[in-house]
Amino acid sequence: MIRAAAARLEGHARLTPLLSSPFLDEIAGRQVWVKPECLQHTGSFKFRGGYAAISALEPQIRARGVIAYSSGNHAQGVALAAKMHGIEAVIVMPQDTPRLKIANTRAFGAEVVLYDRENEDRGAIGREIAETRGLSLIKPFDEPEVIAGQGSTGLEIARQARALGITQADVIVCCGGGGLSSGVALALEAEAPGLRVRTAEPEFYDDTARSLQSGWIESNARRGNALCDAIVTPQPGDLTFPILKRLAGAGLVVSDDEVLQAMGHAFNWLKLVAEPGGAVALAAALFRANEIEGDAVIVTITGGNVDPGIFARALDRLR
Amino acid sequence: MIRAAAARLEGHARLTPLLSSPFLDEIAGRQVWVKPECLQHTGSFKFRGGYAAISALEPQIRARGVIAYSSGNHAQGVALAAKMHGIEAVIVMPQDTPRLKIANTRAFGAEVVLYDRENEDRGAIGREIAETRGLSLIKPFDEPEVIAGQGSTGLEIARQARALGITQADVIVCCGGGGLSSGVALALEAEAPGLRVRTAEPEFYDDTARSLQSGWIESNARRGNALCDAIVTPQPGDLTFPILKRLAGAGLVVSDDEVLQAMGHAFNWLKLVAEPGGAVALAAALFRANEIEGDAVIVTITGGNVDPGIFARALDRLR
Repeated sequence: MIRAAAARLEGHARLTPLLSSPFLDEIAGRQVWVKPECLQHTGSFKFRGGYAAISALEPQIRARGVIAYSSGNHAQGVALAAKMHGIEAVIVMPQDTPRLKIANTRAFGAEVVLYDRENEDRGAIGREIAETRGLSLIKPFDEPEVIAGQGSTGLEIARQARALGITQADVIVCCGGGGLSSGVALALEAEAPGLRVRTAEPEFYDDTARSLQSGWIESNARRGNALCDAIVTPQPGDLTFPILKRLAGAGLVVSDDEVLQAMGHAFNWLKLVAEPGGAVALAAALFRANEIEGDAVIVTITGGNVDPGIFARALDRLR
Repeated sequence: MIRAAAARLEGHARLTPLLSSPFLDEIAGRQVWVKPECLQHTGSFKFRGGYAAISALEPQIRARGVIAYSSGNHAQGVALAAKMHGIEAVIVMPQDTPRLKIANTRAFGAEVVLYDRENEDRGAIGREIAETRGLSLIKPFDEPEVIAGQGSTGLEIARQARALGITQADVIVCCGGGGLSSGVALALEAEAPGLRVRTAEPEFYDDTARSLQSGWIESNARRGNALCDAIVTPQPGDLTFPILKRLAGAGLVVSDDEVLQAMGHAFNWLKLVAEPGGAVALAAALFRANEIEGDAVIVTITGGNVDPGIFARALDRLR
């Protein structure tokens, strides 16, 4: 499924490079290779899963359109993927979503439906629209075709690592619900068995790390208002977790301050804009070196959709 | 020479992609394609020229080492290119160069020689070191092998434009001494004659635009302390200007405020860090639309080496 998804994505998703800097190597104490999915269409890897899922629908089903619940990267990824297929996308978002994100999602051609987070049930709203209009729901991570689409990142990493002569390394993936981590883990299992996925999460939202440790799906006590909002989910997915349990190493956890520092290093040494949730893997490579194995490490920067005010905080840490 | 330089650079320079965003297209009123040389090694296109010039030296001459005068991107480009060739590089810099730039140049393996801008003649200092140690001078732009190295960017643009079906377009290049603009102009003349170079400069430092208009090399009245410091040179080069005069269209000129806005747009829509001098071409594409021809425009982002404090000013313009 991952190979099929990658074939459908070819010519539509960007093949992101592997970048490096001697300054990052110095900090991490090993070679650091960065897969910048912030350079992907819509500024995050989520475009891959959205496009893969939409392109996998039966044509007559797809023609009716799709629906997604998201205020963030998944919304924009699904919106653009739908536009590229010439179909309608409805995105259900909380009323208090920052206006710029709503405007961007609309600019990608989607119809945005707002709901009141306190008093309305987004599931009920979405289901009614979907049923009335015959729309297909594109889930953000716990969906095989979405995992397959995100896994195309792993096929690229396997090929790029091979070209660099890297056969043994940890591949650190920023982890929310686990769609990208599990997809990459499956791709590496098949194409580069010496590369092993390690999930990276912010502290207090380390559900995957704790789940990997206990062997059971664990939840976060804290909800919402996190710096790394793009990757804060209540718990790992029912489909994604068993994959990670079988294939991933121990989960890595970093602090918000380390995330801001990593964003500054991406600015300084890679000239890339990383969003907080997209910088946790780089933070882990730089500041958890003794929990990582091997002479080289590969990290994803999963997105770059960050408000200027938050990015300014990362810049302040450099001064 | 450009083709030969490109062949020597293969596997050493990064092949940067052409990126786009529907939001930039919307502002510019046409398709905008961005060549992000901020993602090049050392954060600017200058690595290409430094590497090309060093790799073109006779082996026994090269083995003695190289010298360059620069406090900026050329310094880092030459330093890393020398390191890759396993040879010494001496970089002559003013004492008041920001410490981070000195540290970075040293980190790329170069020996940094500082001089007092007020009381010492850098030419005399450099000549003495070069003669004593037998070092080859790598000039920043007015040197055929440097122009050829920068021109490799133009060969990539020609190939990438062809793959996108773009046969007629202006190619806007951030212009200081004209090494990149003239190299790209020559590459396009040979490989994509429907693509035409347009230089972009900041106002008050528009020596190339005025020179193109008068047909003679004109100088800037203002010196130093410019926002776009990386591309502020007194006047076009003796080698570069005749090439631009023959091949380039009218020069484009933008304000500092437009440059800061363009940096913000690169942050928002491309997730790229552009330095002020590296953002003038994008600013011209966005804010001088009526001086540009065609349905598509290609712009270079020539570098990303910007201080956090200046980048924060660009972010402030977004809020």
